[in-house]
Amino acid sequence: MAPRLTGAAVAEHNSKDSCWVIVHGKAYDVTEFLPEHPGGSKIILKYAGKDATEEFDPIHPPDTLDKYLDKSKHLGDVDMSTVEQEEKEVDPEEAERLERIKRMPPLAACYNLMDFETVARQIMKKTGWAYYSSGADDEITLRENHHAFHKIWFRPRVLVDVENIDMSTTMLGTPVSIPFYVTATALGKLGHPEGEVVLTKAAHNHNVIQMIPTLASCSFDEIVDAKQGDQVQWLQLYVNKDREITRKIVAHAEKRGCKGLFITVDAPQLGRREKDMRSKFSDAGSNVQSGDDGIDRSQGAARAISSFIDPALSWKDIPWFKSITKMPIVLKGVQCVEDVLRAVETGVDGVVLSNHGGRQLETARSGIEVLAEVMPALRERGWDKRIEVYVDGGVRRATDILKALCLGAKGVGIGRPFLYAMSAYGVDGVNRAMQLLKDEMEMNMRLIGATRVEDLNPSFLDTRGLLSGHAGTIPSDTLGLRAYDPLQGPRFNEKAKL
Amino acid sequence: MAPRLTGAAVAEHNSKDSCWVIVHGKAYDVTEFLPEHPGGSKIILKYAGKDATEEFDPIHPPDTLDKYLDKSKHLGDVDMSTVEQEEKEVDPEEAERLERIKRMPPLAACYNLMDFETVARQIMKKTGWAYYSSGADDEITLRENHHAFHKIWFRPRVLVDVENIDMSTTMLGTPVSIPFYVTATALGKLGHPEGEVVLTKAAHNHNVIQMIPTLASCSFDEIVDAKQGDQVQWLQLYVNKDREITRKIVAHAEKRGCKGLFITVDAPQLGRREKDMRSKFSDAGSNVQSGDDGIDRSQGAARAISSFIDPALSWKDIPWFKSITKMPIVLKGVQCVEDVLRAVETGVDGVVLSNHGGRQLETARSGIEVLAEVMPALRERGWDKRIEVYVDGGVRRATDILKALCLGAKGVGIGRPFLYAMSAYGVDGVNRAMQLLKDEMEMNMRLIGATRVEDLNPSFLDTRGLLSGHAGTIPSDTLGLRAYDPLQGPRFNEKAKL
Amino acid sequence: MAPRLTGAAVAEHNSKDSCWVIVHGKAYDVTEFLPEHPGGSKIILKYAGKDATEEFDPIHPPDTLDKYLDKSKHLGDVDMSTVEQEEKEVDPEEAERLERIKRMPPLAACYNLMDFETVARQIMKKTGWAYYSSGADDEITLRENHHAFHKIWFRPRVLVDVENIDMSTTMLGTPVSIPFYVTATALGKLGHPEGEVVLTKAAHNHNVIQMIPTLASCSFDEIVDAKQGDQVQWLQLYVNKDREITRKIVAHAEKRGCKGLFITVDAPQLGRREKDMRSKFSDAGSNVQSGDDGIDRSQGAARAISSFIDPALSWKDIPWFKSITKMPIVLKGVQCVEDVLRAVETGVDGVVLSNHGGRQLETARSGIEVLAEVMPALRERGWDKRIEVYVDGGVRRATDILKALCLGAKGVGIGRPFLYAMSAYGVDGVNRAMQLLKDEMEMNMRLIGATRVEDLNPSFLDTRGLLSGHAGTIPSDTLGLRAYDPLQGPRFNEKAKL
Amino acid sequence: MAPRLTGAAVAEHNSKDSCWVIVHGKAYDVTEFLPEHPGGSKIILKYAGKDATEEFDPIHPPDTLDKYLDKSKHLGDVDMSTVEQEEKEVDPEEAERLERIKRMPPLAACYNLMDFETVARQIMKKTGWAYYSSGADDEITLRENHHAFHKIWFRPRVLVDVENIDMSTTMLGTPVSIPFYVTATALGKLGHPEGEVVLTKAAHNHNVIQMIPTLASCSFDEIVDAKQGDQVQWLQLYVNKDREITRKIVAHAEKRGCKGLFITVDAPQLGRREKDMRSKFSDAGSNVQSGDDGIDRSQGAARAISSFIDPALSWKDIPWFKSITKMPIVLKGVQCVEDVLRAVETGVDGVVLSNHGGRQLETARSGIEVLAEVMPALRERGWDKRIEVYVDGGVRRATDILKALCLGAKGVGIGRPFLYAMSAYGVDGVNRAMQLLKDEMEMNMRLIGATRVEDLNPSFLDTRGLLSGHAGTIPSDTLGLRAYDPLQGPRFNEKAKL
Repeated sequence: MAPRLTGAAVAEHNSKDSCWVIVHGKAYDVTEFLPEHPGGSKIILKYAGKDATEEFDPIHPPDTLDKYLDKSKHLGDVDMSTVEQEEKEVDPEEAERLERIKRMPPLAACYNLMDFETVARQIMKKTGWAYYSSGADDEITLRENHHAFHKIWFRPRVLVDVENIDMSTTMLGTPVSIPFYVTATALGKLGHPEGEVVLTKAAHNHNVIQMIPTLASCSFDEIVDAKQGDQVQWLQLYVNKDREITRKIVAHAEKRGCKGLFITVDAPQLGRREKDMRSKFSDAGSNVQSGDDGIDRSQGAARAISSFIDPALSWKDIPWFKSITKMPIVLKGVQCVEDVLRAVETGVDGVVLSNHGGRQLETARSGIEVLAEVMPALRERGWDKRIEVYVDGGVRRATDILKALCLGAKGVGIGRPFLYAMSAYGVDGVNRAMQLLKDEMEMNMRLIGATRVEDLNPSFLDTRGLLSGHAGTIPSDTLGLRAYDPLQGPRFNEKAKL
Repeated sequence: MAPRLTGAAVAEHNSKDSCWVIVHGKAYDVTEFLPEHPGGSKIILKYAGKDATEEFDPIHPPDTLDKYLDKSKHLGDVDMSTVEQEEKEVDPEEAERLERIKRMPPLAACYNLMDFETVARQIMKKTGWAYYSSGADDEITLRENHHAFHKIWFRPRVLVDVENIDMSTTMLGTPVSIPFYVTATALGKLGHPEGEVVLTKAAHNHNVIQMIPTLASCSFDEIVDAKQGDQVQWLQLYVNKDREITRKIVAHAEKRGCKGLFITVDAPQLGRREKDMRSKFSDAGSNVQSGDDGIDRSQGAARAISSFIDPALSWKDIPWFKSITKMPIVLKGVQCVEDVLRAVETGVDGVVLSNHGGRQLETARSGIEVLAEVMPALRERGWDKRIEVYVDGGVRRATDILKALCLGAKGVGIGRPFLYAMSAYGVDGVNRAMQLLKDEMEMNMRLIGATRVEDLNPSFLDTRGLLSGHAGTIPSDTLGLRAYDPLQGPRFNEKAKL
Repeated sequence: MAPRLTGAAVAEHNSKDSCWVIVHGKAYDVTEFLPEHPGGSKIILKYAGKDATEEFDPIHPPDTLDKYLDKSKHLGDVDMSTVEQEEKEVDPEEAERLERIKRMPPLAACYNLMDFETVARQIMKKTGWAYYSSGADDEITLRENHHAFHKIWFRPRVLVDVENIDMSTTMLGTPVSIPFYVTATALGKLGHPEGEVVLTKAAHNHNVIQMIPTLASCSFDEIVDAKQGDQVQWLQLYVNKDREITRKIVAHAEKRGCKGLFITVDAPQLGRREKDMRSKFSDAGSNVQSGDDGIDRSQGAARAISSFIDPALSWKDIPWFKSITKMPIVLKGVQCVEDVLRAVETGVDGVVLSNHGGRQLETARSGIEVLAEVMPALRERGWDKRIEVYVDGGVRRATDILKALCLGAKGVGIGRPFLYAMSAYGVDGVNRAMQLLKDEMEMNMRLIGATRVEDLNPSFLDTRGLLSGHAGTIPSDTLGLRAYDPLQGPRFNEKAKL
Repeated sequence: MAPRLTGAAVAEHNSKDSCWVIVHGKAYDVTEFLPEHPGGSKIILKYAGKDATEEFDPIHPPDTLDKYLDKSKHLGDVDMSTVEQEEKEVDPEEAERLERIKRMPPLAACYNLMDFETVARQIMKKTGWAYYSSGADDEITLRENHHAFHKIWFRPRVLVDVENIDMSTTMLGTPVSIPFYVTATALGKLGHPEGEVVLTKAAHNHNVIQMIPTLASCSFDEIVDAKQGDQVQWLQLYVNKDREITRKIVAHAEKRGCKGLFITVDAPQLGRREKDMRSKFSDAGSNVQSGDDGIDRSQGAARAISSFIDPALSWKDIPWFKSITKMPIVLKGVQCVEDVLRAVETGVDGVVLSNHGGRQLETARSGIEVLAEVMPALRERGWDKRIEVYVDGGVRRATDILKALCLGAKGVGIGRPFLYAMSAYGVDGVNRAMQLLKDEMEMNMRLIGATRVEDLNPSFLDTRGLLSGHAGTIPSDTLGLRAYDPLQGPRFNEKAKL
């Protein structure tokens, strides 16, 4: 066994001419790898000669170095006791965050999915929060996603015997306890040290399907290994420019038992998420004077890890996918009726109407609005049984799920709320989030007067609010509003009455 | 006469193995009753061995223990001087509330129904406020109920002789002075120590009908006993899983002179009201660390008391109701035109278009909006005289009442505003609230140019605002709004001119 | 000459059994008049035995006592040096107001009509502000009046020779310099010690018509006496229950040269204006404990002075008006197309589409919206030349005037803005307000490409925004909004860069 | 060489009877010029006998005095060491501004065009900010311009090969790298000491066209001299009452190589911009008591410099323009379909649908909304290739550009954002702003599934939101909102848990 390296020995290699880093107690020579790093060389050089574990972990699955760095660059164990501990400046915001964690509300004080967001926002690390919560441009689509559900109102039926509610259904042939699945979201370890396997456990507890993300913090196999019993998982796929890599990923997923292949089609390039960028910037760039040194230090987590995605992916690739797998194929990120019709004609098994959680194209319409455009066209052609239509984006309440199902969706995907629940409370949090949805679902099926998923149909909805598109309002009359003296209610006395 | 029990003797029975509680100076052995308690055993165990009167009173009619606890468990009088007084921690919020009560605005400073809400919010106990004011989910329907009236605008007629205004009408055959009734609302003692009889008195003073709630704090007979002269009351009914209980309640109500049976059909399960839940939680759970001990301590007052309601109630039960009573039957909580037509066909005497004050299904439409859908369909069939159509939810102004009547309603129900008036100012408050409505009504009938209820018709209204459903707006452009420099009016000088 | 009364002698008559008051240095015995006082006896009794001049003045024209109190009750001069000066408690709000007056912005800092409102709000006495600024109920119509103009957008024409702009027109045959008139508003002395004659002077300066209010603080003759040259005035009329009084008023006005009779038809009863009521209340009632002593101390200025108005006025009275005067007759306050058509058939000369400045019926539509309903119906019948159609309510900008004229109005009435200008800056303020409108008008006629009033027509407007009525939005998602982390722009450094 | 004048000698001429001023170290006798000064004499008299350079520079191109003041009035050099330095009072707002400049965010922290506005607002001089940022009246059109883009949502296509994006196009025959141009904006030196040439440099860097403003701070020739290589510029023209001056300007521009003549047609008179006026006022008028001394000291920068513009310009002048130049002629500021059709018939080469950045007619519609009205009418007639249609106003994001191009625009003009970028960060700022647009453009073309400008068409858009015009909402229910108790999320504990 080789002698362990000392911290001092590693520390000598602290430049782009010779750059060593320590990860999990082992040293690696990344000098030659610097220009190839998808996230840029700058971020690595920040840790040249030092321990990079903390920064490395959430962004890279554990098998990354084995997979992508030649064995000859693996320099062996480091005697960590000899590595100088970096004195971190006390960041007052971070100190406040740690203080807030001590005062966290108990889990039972979370009554709905928004509550997890409220808590997570205050206790998550800045970069993790920024990565999860951010959306494209002005985050108008991000917010529209939930908002759009509020344009649809219910037309409930009364005096229906609703004693027994059955909210189970099937998705791509798999029976599930309730019509939602855990959709794929990247970089789970930004929120929780265990990453995506937390979601795997909760999905098992509640008998719902988990979609495994390409950009997970855990490795694919870790996530599959975490499944229990006959738990079902799907694979979300970013298609690599190198199709052979993609072929291997798909074949491996099928071999490991995945039951659905969800090809992301709304992200030929990952979107600009300025909240995420800004967070990165304040991390890396606070002492930088010049703004334009040619290095984009501010691209945020998402873009750093996505350079492999193939922007040339097109309809003519679909037959190839059908040739390499027997898994049902679903296109994730379809956004207008024309493409849904084409998907049917192409023979895929499903579509997810999605704008990628408002993270890609700004003022893209919400999935639920697209659904209202899509389903009548499918029914008109008698094609509504030839394809399963899913929706994601903005689902926060069981009423949201019900609206999607009444319109004709087979199910909905939920992403961020579970990330927030996980980040704040771990697996207990995700369990409670799912249970809250089940409680809401049972109650709301009773209240609209439907006992089974099959009973749901458009007559339960008033969707006129969607017809006018996005009408907007007139910019407010600031001068007039300031001049106006608003009404006041009764005033309490200044002093107590005698 | 048996010797009185001592506080110490009762205090020994302070566990689930032997649980005694004191209510109104008498001890009860509730050990065996614990698992049957609709509100859960936990809340009783909190008072095991102690005096539970204060918590017991608002939630239970006075005859509850006689009715539901076997006489053998009635242990007799307690010498209250021997019962240890619990030292309550001083709650700073409660101290502030008591301080605010001293500075309450005089009743005459309340000029409209909103004013009572403003006052009540500040002087009511937290749990009472939370129970009364809360709605389902995000309280969007709760707020839409009043908001929807603002989508309807008037088309008044001028130069009509409006010297003499007659706002009287009839409801189910009973003459009333103005077209509203006091709708049923639960747990009146959360707001006022005398409970629902306060409303009985005010209803008599103003010659309007009171609907008696199943879930009153007072017993049914107390409320009936409080009526004066030929005052008319109706019964609101939650249908029990045990139909025999229901039959007895109905028979008793008819015998006691009730003139209408309002069967609640929008609550097969009582809704989740998170404001109420959260209030309960902070009471019971503030020192709880773990969030998930399997006990739902946070269900709020409503759900605790409603487990008896039959979710299997359906259209086929209606003939049975017709067979057991001669009272007119009205379905309370109908929410779409299809069900109103079915109600006519089923031969009931009326419907209340209602979403239960926004407390049940979120994004259920307001009664007034449903009314605009219902009445044309009834008129088209010539059925508008075969059934009386009522509306409740969000009525705060006489203009709201007028809009409902112009559309075709026979009358409107008003609930919360009277509870708030009662909570803040007792019977004087409710009297003033009703008088304010009468003053507004007289004035507004003059101003639209109608002297009698019969004169009201849809031509007085511009209802185009309802046609687009719930169109919503675009999420605001937060970045742009922050970047925009709003206009300012003229600035006052910093210093006085010399 | 009789000896002057002493303050002590008057002070003895300080009860309802014998009630004397001093006004402008003279004593009056009002004991018998107490029950007849339109504003109630309470307010007089507050000054029993005392000097009531300050309270009396703004509410009563100077000839009131001569007209309405029998000469026998005029007790003669009081030696004011013997009248005890009441020590007023220092009101901190009033002290702040006086301080603000010292720091008032110079008149030249007012660039638009809103600016006068902003200044007036801060420097007017509380009661005057409340009386002028208040509207009915929730003041939704009050605000809608201006807001409605923002639903109409321009379709300007370019490359029109707009060197010479002529904004003059005629109203009921009188040439005016610009198509607005000063509409009637009550109680001018609440804002300025000289009252309505201030407006008379400014109207003369700018060659526009003033409409004289029935409820002026100045006497009718004072206002007529203040006119100069061939200045034209109109009379606004509240019709008295005693038609003979009305006949005399009309005859007198005609004799004094009034050129138009505007009969108010939207106020059979004056509206509830809660801001006004609340202001009165805090004046009179701050030390009152009980809220319901049977005396309505809170009715506000308007209702106190309007009890004489006849609610029985109707269409069948119109021929009588035509019989008693040769002045053109205009109905002020018409609010729907049906009544405009009837007005044409009845043979009146004009209508003012108005909701009384949002002070009468809540959720009455704005005049400009009614105009958009009315004019097409008139044109369709070829009646648009048979009647002059005016609009008032919410006019604040010359663009507002232009929109009304493009739709087909002959002119617009403006009220409150001139009151605010007068209250803050006297006649100079009103002059500037009118000049600002002229400057805006000239510029905006240039910018839409019209050189004369006759050029204006509906093709200059996009009125689609009016078609959907009052569609409203969905109540906001408070929980979601609080959970959402809004975007931030770039952050400035905490410390300066070195 | 003449002896230099002393400061004392100049200082004697400090009245309207003899008024000398110093500009850039030279003295000028402007006594006779005072009444002719377009900005009024008052502002000059403020500097009578003093050095006016700082005030003079941003408002006047450097050749102004040579051009407009007779040589006989050029008095020669002043010994600046003898000129008394005026002690400026320390303005606390100015001190804070200077402090903020030290803490400015680095350029790289600006991620979008709004960010430059946010920074510029805080670091620009008050007058410059007011001039650039202000709009007409209530600035509703100003804000609507950007807001209107949010009414249009995307219908993206997926599975299109978007590897290679080509965003280049041509404008009036000139190839450009991206479909925007730098539109003309006045008084560049208010933001940056070098003025418009900063924009020239950035336009060259990014291969886009700059439109040179008539009212530039730099002289026309300075701006042309600053161009590099085959860089293309256009001329924006305010037409002078003296057509010969206009003819010379046009001929000179053509000679200097300008490739397009953009005649401003929406500004027969420059608009009232109250934010600008108010800013001027607080500068000049803070110690003025009387508001109305007959001198309008508050007209703001724009109107001061625009008195030469001919309000008589009309369609019949267009043939003359065609006769004096071979440059393509574009009408800038067309605002309805009728005028676009007329423009085609008149034979001009293009139109810019524009409301002058919301600085002219209030509630004029946004260019993008007018575009949606115009293009179908052009296509219907087959005229859409006969004219190039541009849009400006409110463009802040590449998505905005894409929406305009999908509707049928040839390109968009961008003005203020580049001024803000220049004011805050100079040419680096403008470069970054343009680069950000290019990055956004590339990404968003990928995301909607279009690789070339020619691919863009209306099927990529959902424009239903434009159909309802400007529908507005109901004024908020202030009393109800204040009475309503909003929902709260989970509360953090007051103290940390032990």
